[in-house]
Amino acid sequence: MFKKVLVANRGEIAVQIIRALHDMGITAVAVYSSADKNSLFVHLADEAICIGGPQPSDSYLNMAQIISAANLTGCEAIHPGYGFLSENAEFAELCETCHIKFIGPSHDLISLMGDKANARRAMKNAGVPVIPGSEGVVKTVTQAKEVAERIGFPVLLKSAAGGGGKGIREVDRPQDLQSAFEQTQREAQVSYDDDDVYVEKLIRNAKHVEMQVVADDFNHAVYLPERDCSLQRNHQKVIEESPCVLISPTERKKLGEIVAKATLQLGYTNTGTYEFLMGEDHHFYFMEMNTRLQVEHTITEEVTGIELVKAQLLVANHQPLPFTQADATVKGHALECRLNAEDPRHHFAPQPGRINHLFFPAGSLGVRIDSGVAQGSFISPFYDSMIAKLIVHLNDREAVIAKMKRLLGELEINGVVTNQAFLKYLIGTEAFRTGNYSTSFIENAVLAEKEDFHAAESV
Amino acid sequence: MFKKVLVANRGEIAVQIIRALHDMGITAVAVYSSADKNSLFVHLADEAICIGGPQPSDSYLNMAQIISAANLTGCEAIHPGYGFLSENAEFAELCETCHIKFIGPSHDLISLMGDKANARRAMKNAGVPVIPGSEGVVKTVTQAKEVAERIGFPVLLKSAAGGGGKGIREVDRPQDLQSAFEQTQREAQVSYDDDDVYVEKLIRNAKHVEMQVVADDFNHAVYLPERDCSLQRNHQKVIEESPCVLISPTERKKLGEIVAKATLQLGYTNTGTYEFLMGEDHHFYFMEMNTRLQVEHTITEEVTGIELVKAQLLVANHQPLPFTQADATVKGHALECRLNAEDPRHHFAPQPGRINHLFFPAGSLGVRIDSGVAQGSFISPFYDSMIAKLIVHLNDREAVIAKMKRLLGELEINGVVTNQAFLKYLIGTEAFRTGNYSTSFIENAVLAEKEDFHAAESV
Repeated sequence: MFKKVLVANRGEIAVQIIRALHDMGITAVAVYSSADKNSLFVHLADEAICIGGPQPSDSYLNMAQIISAANLTGCEAIHPGYGFLSENAEFAELCETCHIKFIGPSHDLISLMGDKANARRAMKNAGVPVIPGSEGVVKTVTQAKEVAERIGFPVLLKSAAGGGGKGIREVDRPQDLQSAFEQTQREAQVSYDDDDVYVEKLIRNAKHVEMQVVADDFNHAVYLPERDCSLQRNHQKVIEESPCVLISPTERKKLGEIVAKATLQLGYTNTGTYEFLMGEDHHFYFMEMNTRLQVEHTITEEVTGIELVKAQLLVANHQPLPFTQADATVKGHALECRLNAEDPRHHFAPQPGRINHLFFPAGSLGVRIDSGVAQGSFISPFYDSMIAKLIVHLNDREAVIAKMKRLLGELEINGVVTNQAFLKYLIGTEAFRTGNYSTSFIENAVLAEKEDFHAAESV
Repeated sequence: MFKKVLVANRGEIAVQIIRALHDMGITAVAVYSSADKNSLFVHLADEAICIGGPQPSDSYLNMAQIISAANLTGCEAIHPGYGFLSENAEFAELCETCHIKFIGPSHDLISLMGDKANARRAMKNAGVPVIPGSEGVVKTVTQAKEVAERIGFPVLLKSAAGGGGKGIREVDRPQDLQSAFEQTQREAQVSYDDDDVYVEKLIRNAKHVEMQVVADDFNHAVYLPERDCSLQRNHQKVIEESPCVLISPTERKKLGEIVAKATLQLGYTNTGTYEFLMGEDHHFYFMEMNTRLQVEHTITEEVTGIELVKAQLLVANHQPLPFTQADATVKGHALECRLNAEDPRHHFAPQPGRINHLFFPAGSLGVRIDSGVAQGSFISPFYDSMIAKLIVHLNDREAVIAKMKRLLGELEINGVVTNQAFLKYLIGTEAFRTGNYSTSFIENAVLAEKEDFHAAESV
């Protein structure tokens, strides 16, 4: 096994990785920006090297500095965590060139998955269902009609040059297609000076369901129980649970076997996550693959009992997976709430500041609180505003929700505005209780329901 | 369900009970001594009443004050925790008289189990194996010989009036019995003015193995996987694990069925623990029954996923058990280390004092730290010196031990002397690694091995 590993990240994930390294008897080297000098992850590491200023480009994204730090301290491998350089194919390749093991998949697969169109094509070839559509630009109404009839209404007409929710038009009925197509083309021409339009199936009330895999160099790929990450704001996950209450064991197995097979076919190793939209009809549509550990890997650890960072280190060291598909069963239910320094009343704007008082309600069956901060810590404007992940894992979902409510009530934090009350409100909704929530739940239902929301704020 | 429950305890167990009450939506009332005014459990309770001075007799053992507090606040039930009044039959009866539900078994069963001789008789009648012996005083050498031959050598000769390890003589061979008997009688006469002697089988290298049961009012009794609590100092447990590595599933089932049957036969409800000595031949011998929740119930919660305080509340409220025997299976392995303010170099003498600095390494898969203290807390000379319970639960024992070592390394505590290094030393021994340790391990092997011990202290 590696003797010494560099952790190219910060905050709670750096803490988690350092702990996993220590559990395995491996020396942990931290790199940090000057803003993180007094952070918990720096304190816990065996060695720590300041690699630059607070701006990510000066430190956590500074590849040359990180490679130098690894060489200087004699590290054999680098764990990139999530965010920052974790999905940077150039960095993974640079590590390889420098004979440092990048703990993740190969750089060519990171590169492939980083290009949405190529990733979609590769997945389709590997037998993973993708969102049906026109496979490129449609030039005429006739072509658009052919595609729409093949994939079925409702469809979306999308400007190829659009993005961020702009240049998209929903078409529910065949008779509306012609005028919609012409309008979309016209608007695209005006807005982007490019009238290219393509057609895609509209997945109504979709859930964001994702499935993580772990694969080794010996042709083993194990899929892990799915996570329901539909509760998002500004396209970022806020609450995740595993398993998804709407998915049956048969559906889990079917989807799992598809992704495990694709993983082997792609020659993908280490861990990765297939993100899907799930329609109301329980069809799955591939969106993208995250070629790294995810923030929400914790709930998968909880429901399976599998330590994922440890598994990453083992396979990076060319060892076989220490578990089989039969070990990766669902054991109970797990829920994670991300406590962020942000203001739900102002579009979830980050709220940097110093934490004057902090009390985490840890210490009871099934409770895990992962955090990189302590009382007195400063939530920096330079980085993600996440303060902690509150995780509950128990035998049944109802008890999990009750305990999470209690945790959110017991938690004390002063000095920064947080989404604590908003989280409590969300898990108290009927939609959450029944599991019938989709990706649009937070933005459509909750933000529109100002009254409910203000009621929640006053709890 | 109860609307409001009084917690007649302090420290970490009061915190646990208050949290369980809150998880169930029940209002929690704390009672506290003036020494505990600023304690975490007082802070977490919905209401808190000071019931007297720091001396336990003035507060936590003051039955009249506790009953008054319950009446004053309108509590329907009292949870006694462990220690203090938890095994006091008079208090349980007083609660009944005052129409307050005592959360535990009936007062007559507490009373029965409080008398060692009666408990032994009741267990024997209920089919629970007890340590073979003379069933009372033997008056002559001939009688002693008859008993010894029936139960087999080695035997112990015990002065009926002795206690605390005094007045006991080990006899390994028949030819030594006569002189040993006469000597024991003579010494007992001199020491206690009472020459009564009885005979008991000596269980060499015994393990302390215990099995907890939970029973409801509807004739359901469920046994839970055994705990190995052999690591003790001054007759108090220090490290516990579940399951016991030396016990097979068949042995577990056999012992479990015996205690579950006895529980029903005795008409015992709520939770209780059967404590056994297990000989090298894997025979079990009943020692005593604890008619309450135990400190180490945590590891049973971890390996089964069952919330025990919640189960206690349900059955106290005349509801059926929310789980069956089939749910109470072993899921992985759990280990608990008790972090105490005590000096292992001076007979584990308690070390009261203020905690100036405290860092608990919580936040990683399978880690639970139950505590009633925080940085700045004062470890009072009036109460138990336990600071926290460090608990690790993972799929396999080796990973559990590795993680516990890491926790004990990462934990930071200043201001009071603790057994932190001693715990780390214990779980690092070969005997612990293999599971081949008996109740005499700490006192005989470790304390005698001053060199090892000092080596551990300098870690």
